[in-house]
Amino acid sequence: MTSFLPTDEEREFIEVAKGFALEKIRPIAREVEDNRIVNDKMVKELEELGFLSREMPEEWEGLELPLISQAQILQALSYGDLAVIQGLPGAGDAASFIRLQKDHPILSLHKEELIQSNKTIALLDLLEVANSQITIEKTENGWMIDGVSQPIRLASFADYVIVAAKDNEGVPVVLWVDIYQDQVKVDSGDYRLGLLASGTGKIIFDQVQISKQLALAEAEDAVKLMADTRNRIRVLQAAKQVGLMEAALDYATEYTAGRKAFGQEIAKFQGVSFRIADMAMETRIAAHLVWEAALAVDGGKNTAAGSSIRALYRAHRSLRFVTDSAVQLLGGHGYVQEYPVEKWMRDAQAQVTLYGRERELLIERGEQILSGAIGVTV
Amino acid sequence: MTSFLPTDEEREFIEVAKGFALEKIRPIAREVEDNRIVNDKMVKELEELGFLSREMPEEWEGLELPLISQAQILQALSYGDLAVIQGLPGAGDAASFIRLQKDHPILSLHKEELIQSNKTIALLDLLEVANSQITIEKTENGWMIDGVSQPIRLASFADYVIVAAKDNEGVPVVLWVDIYQDQVKVDSGDYRLGLLASGTGKIIFDQVQISKQLALAEAEDAVKLMADTRNRIRVLQAAKQVGLMEAALDYATEYTAGRKAFGQEIAKFQGVSFRIADMAMETRIAAHLVWEAALAVDGGKNTAAGSSIRALYRAHRSLRFVTDSAVQLLGGHGYVQEYPVEKWMRDAQAQVTLYGRERELLIERGEQILSGAIGVTV
Amino acid sequence: MTSFLPTDEEREFIEVAKGFALEKIRPIAREVEDNRIVNDKMVKELEELGFLSREMPEEWEGLELPLISQAQILQALSYGDLAVIQGLPGAGDAASFIRLQKDHPILSLHKEELIQSNKTIALLDLLEVANSQITIEKTENGWMIDGVSQPIRLASFADYVIVAAKDNEGVPVVLWVDIYQDQVKVDSGDYRLGLLASGTGKIIFDQVQISKQLALAEAEDAVKLMADTRNRIRVLQAAKQVGLMEAALDYATEYTAGRKAFGQEIAKFQGVSFRIADMAMETRIAAHLVWEAALAVDGGKNTAAGSSIRALYRAHRSLRFVTDSAVQLLGGHGYVQEYPVEKWMRDAQAQVTLYGRERELLIERGEQILSGAIGVTV
Amino acid sequence: MTSFLPTDEEREFIEVAKGFALEKIRPIAREVEDNRIVNDKMVKELEELGFLSREMPEEWEGLELPLISQAQILQALSYGDLAVIQGLPGAGDAASFIRLQKDHPILSLHKEELIQSNKTIALLDLLEVANSQITIEKTENGWMIDGVSQPIRLASFADYVIVAAKDNEGVPVVLWVDIYQDQVKVDSGDYRLGLLASGTGKIIFDQVQISKQLALAEAEDAVKLMADTRNRIRVLQAAKQVGLMEAALDYATEYTAGRKAFGQEIAKFQGVSFRIADMAMETRIAAHLVWEAALAVDGGKNTAAGSSIRALYRAHRSLRFVTDSAVQLLGGHGYVQEYPVEKWMRDAQAQVTLYGRERELLIERGEQILSGAIGVTV
Repeated sequence: MTSFLPTDEEREFIEVAKGFALEKIRPIAREVEDNRIVNDKMVKELEELGFLSREMPEEWEGLELPLISQAQILQALSYGDLAVIQGLPGAGDAASFIRLQKDHPILSLHKEELIQSNKTIALLDLLEVANSQITIEKTENGWMIDGVSQPIRLASFADYVIVAAKDNEGVPVVLWVDIYQDQVKVDSGDYRLGLLASGTGKIIFDQVQISKQLALAEAEDAVKLMADTRNRIRVLQAAKQVGLMEAALDYATEYTAGRKAFGQEIAKFQGVSFRIADMAMETRIAAHLVWEAALAVDGGKNTAAGSSIRALYRAHRSLRFVTDSAVQLLGGHGYVQEYPVEKWMRDAQAQVTLYGRERELLIERGEQILSGAIGVTV
Repeated sequence: MTSFLPTDEEREFIEVAKGFALEKIRPIAREVEDNRIVNDKMVKELEELGFLSREMPEEWEGLELPLISQAQILQALSYGDLAVIQGLPGAGDAASFIRLQKDHPILSLHKEELIQSNKTIALLDLLEVANSQITIEKTENGWMIDGVSQPIRLASFADYVIVAAKDNEGVPVVLWVDIYQDQVKVDSGDYRLGLLASGTGKIIFDQVQISKQLALAEAEDAVKLMADTRNRIRVLQAAKQVGLMEAALDYATEYTAGRKAFGQEIAKFQGVSFRIADMAMETRIAAHLVWEAALAVDGGKNTAAGSSIRALYRAHRSLRFVTDSAVQLLGGHGYVQEYPVEKWMRDAQAQVTLYGRERELLIERGEQILSGAIGVTV
Repeated sequence: MTSFLPTDEEREFIEVAKGFALEKIRPIAREVEDNRIVNDKMVKELEELGFLSREMPEEWEGLELPLISQAQILQALSYGDLAVIQGLPGAGDAASFIRLQKDHPILSLHKEELIQSNKTIALLDLLEVANSQITIEKTENGWMIDGVSQPIRLASFADYVIVAAKDNEGVPVVLWVDIYQDQVKVDSGDYRLGLLASGTGKIIFDQVQISKQLALAEAEDAVKLMADTRNRIRVLQAAKQVGLMEAALDYATEYTAGRKAFGQEIAKFQGVSFRIADMAMETRIAAHLVWEAALAVDGGKNTAAGSSIRALYRAHRSLRFVTDSAVQLLGGHGYVQEYPVEKWMRDAQAQVTLYGRERELLIERGEQILSGAIGVTV
Repeated sequence: MTSFLPTDEEREFIEVAKGFALEKIRPIAREVEDNRIVNDKMVKELEELGFLSREMPEEWEGLELPLISQAQILQALSYGDLAVIQGLPGAGDAASFIRLQKDHPILSLHKEELIQSNKTIALLDLLEVANSQITIEKTENGWMIDGVSQPIRLASFADYVIVAAKDNEGVPVVLWVDIYQDQVKVDSGDYRLGLLASGTGKIIFDQVQISKQLALAEAEDAVKLMADTRNRIRVLQAAKQVGLMEAALDYATEYTAGRKAFGQEIAKFQGVSFRIADMAMETRIAAHLVWEAALAVDGGKNTAAGSSIRALYRAHRSLRFVTDSAVQLLGGHGYVQEYPVEKWMRDAQAQVTLYGRERELLIERGEQILSGAIGVTV
């Protein structure tokens, strides 16, 4: 049991995010999906409000906020529309890595450019992926990357990619790849599921040579850094998902309850109020777990990995339940674009696909419990 | 416990359907989605094989097959691609109504035209919908229909619409509406979820006058006919869903097991084999219930309504589980169009939205059991 | 998001409870079940440590602890054995009522006796029970109670019963009944399910006359007091259930992981680690909701009712899942008395039966959300 | 799809079983639990009706019925009370082994005795149990069994035990053990969960010497015979479980719907009718799978193992859902012995514990599917 009290400043920041989400983000969500990109105006506004530099270190002109604050900000912003948030340029998931490795020479070298020009970085984390189609061969002067990745977020917009993987000798490495200079291609595909403005694409490495000095971390360092990065990303992604859940829950509730003409009748149907209550509970449960995980990571506790896995697993499961339920509660309106729920459901499915290894995550956690690495009830 | 034995002829017919599904339907599924219409060649081939006239009465040059045979044929065809099957022109769900009311003068009048020119009929069943946005006003010479429907299948392709609803005096009527003559409009929307070639659209009635003689049924007749029609449609739709489940199950199994390079590793993951077995069980369960319902309807049993509700409810639930699971088992490949599972998941969601009032159906059934209208264990 | 920080004093108290639970309560659990009563020594020890007067007001020599502290103490104690905790004499659930109505003349009259002699009070709350078999008839000088109650906890040990119900005129009343003086009988039954030492029994009112001055509350007062009492009871009961969950989870984990000879092999079975992780997550989720509800009630928030319903509903569901899972994980040992899990499962089922109106509670909550009485995401 | 049509004779037999279950078995269920043994009168009546020799071969004066018929008879009988059926003396699960190995010299030797005196045989199947506590050491003249088994059904009543296990050299053997002659002890424990008249106990082997000629099967023969035996047992046990489900479902339905005074009000509660419908569906689903498995085993199909695993897995899951739900639907009456549901729930839990390796069974099946050993949709 820990303190969840935001400071006044943070509280205010969260309030701003909530207002912005409803007034600015929600209205453009459909347009962003059509254009398959978030417009510059929105990006600039979010940047000016500071929302894009939440995770970045202060030395990089970021706000370097604790996860517990970021979680609430992201929850608030994603209430507007998850797909807009997932389509924002910048360091994306890589921001967490940069935060932890901010003084590395290569990153320092690019620091000004990244800050000034709002370059976009994709993160390709293959360290724990069995049988990836990407090979990293150790060469005399560095490494050679070859193969095509599975789709990852921000790939199509990326200027750089941070690649974490084991090389052919089994040594973990984190490499800095320059899309243009290293002639990396991206297959943007013709995706239809959801998160259509997230720049999701497959990264195509055609025997790309990476020199020694472009290693951002190696061996045990790489493992530790990526584990810490992953904990942070899990919390941040799960927080976004809670925001979408709240949006779907509120929308379905309002639809069901508020619209006089239909509403009263629908509310009379057996099971509807049960479903609404269940959706609300799932949303709340997911939020609790995200906050707990945020505090564990912020506090550097040894429960950080377990908590963040649990939070993301549950956020996945709850997100699918809540968005599916919203579609069902809208009946025929669940099919049409005039109502946002069909899009949210598609976004949810895409999100879970991009960030999900649900069962494996929980099995991993079960094994940690069984091996006594973490206490069962924390 | 009842006999499920198909005749040799039926068995052969089913085998043809299976072959056709894999060799002809599956390969064009993505193209059909892109075009948002099933091409004429496919329609003609299916027509020649007799698959389009399964439900039509013999006097209408149909095969007038029992539901138990149709269920297996549809299951086999939908194994190819549900969206192609749902996009086929013709009488669609209205075929079941025509089968039951084949001698009605209005239908007889259109018989030749419907048979020869393969006209398409949409069915708008509002009889049990509370607070529909469509009003049917009794006038001196007939009825006036006004309002916009929720999206229904085949609307965009329809030449005629059969509308079942209560009029403003509470009297149930089934009306024959001519799209062109009666100047009915259809809003085809810009749907994205799934079943994109199914011609789904909202039907717009702008004070459409329908004369007395265009009533296909009234009062108790209308209620009885529509109840019987609904039983048939539930079985036929549920059977299609079983076909899609089998497709998703086989695809995910083959993906998981077969591809040597990845396969073995994926299969080692805890929980994957459990998930596959669970998907297989759900698919089988749904099939059993569909067959049982088909036999109940074919046999004119008083369990027909209960069985068909149960079968469709379960088919909805199982379909969502199986297609969602397939997406998850494919990992990142669950997001990309090269693999059919993301499309199938979207199709499944659309199907459930168009035909689904899941919980209500089961609650209705629960009330039947509690009121003693049907035995609990049949 | 609220502060969950216990004071040092509370923290210490909780630690004492944890130690006591494992060292003193757990070892006598089976014996208590055999004797169907908690022995005096245990009662005295718990009394001396102050655990029996947690909820009682200070004027009644109680500790008058906030629910958030009590929740953690009860969670810790029930970790020893829920059935022992549920069998403790004293004011039981009625303590919450006394706390809220401590200055009522009748209660004041009995104050010394209740404090000194550790009398036991059962609470029979029929206010929201439709079609109870108990009737309360308004008479000239008071009320006449008639009928047999459903089984309630502490009935067999009770010296007094507090009865809350609507009288035959529909007016809510809370009445003070003296078991001996009013010649109330208790049918202690021959229960086998679980919580066998909890004194559960049916209270038999054979035209019991209750005089006017024995009304502890009437009309709106009665409704308000009982609503507040119920909120408190829900939190306290749910907290106990979390304690039992933790016990079952730890036991199953230790059994699975620790026992070398078997352990390793069992842990290898697919799905076991997943199940353990899922049990841990359910336990944690239930705890979060209990703490949140405790804080809501302590803070007098208008979310108190909603939160406490949600917490108890979830605690019921989670408790059944966790204890069932523990039985399954122990395999054949899940059947034998040498291992506590079969007893815990029976206790869990009994607890849920005595305190459970699971679905109704959640539906009630859903209706509150739909009517806007409470916010959806709080 | 296969024929489920019973012959007239079978149909009649099933009707007799149904009547007997309700009129004779149900009324004595509580008494049998109290006595922890089925009385001789009941045994004799069932014997005379032929119900005890269903599975035995004709050469053994058995009816040697196909599983599809037995499944329905057991379903009908267990509708009366599962615990009575599970407490019947005789060959129990071992009957399936005897049927398959009826001409073995050792069995032939005991044939008359077994038939005449209605001796009881327990079956201890350790062939697939990892790390059993029982060791079987190959000796010069046979084997030496040592260790204590987990609780198995009929142990306390057993005259003989058939033990299937791997010996210390890894060779599978099936041994015939004479309880009295071989001085095997049984620990009958003090069980409380359920199936209290089933003679469940642990078998204690204290260095029991078994001579060579007492091997009923060895090596591959043993594996094949036990696999076939297991398939049969799964179907027969699952069928019994369906009977209990039907009993709980009917009881809960009648309680909810029928009792005028309460009933109507309870039926109004949201969710109750949904729950009843869901229970009915689960029961039906389980029945379908049992029948399918029975036909697969009867027909000697290669899907027999997969189908029987699936049927028992589902029967376990459904049984727990249906009996738990019944307890909940009865509210406070779910706790008291006057109503059978609390006993049924305990019996259900005991049954699942004794016959359950639920998840493992399904994972096994998943692996069969993935390895292509069986088709996914059969």
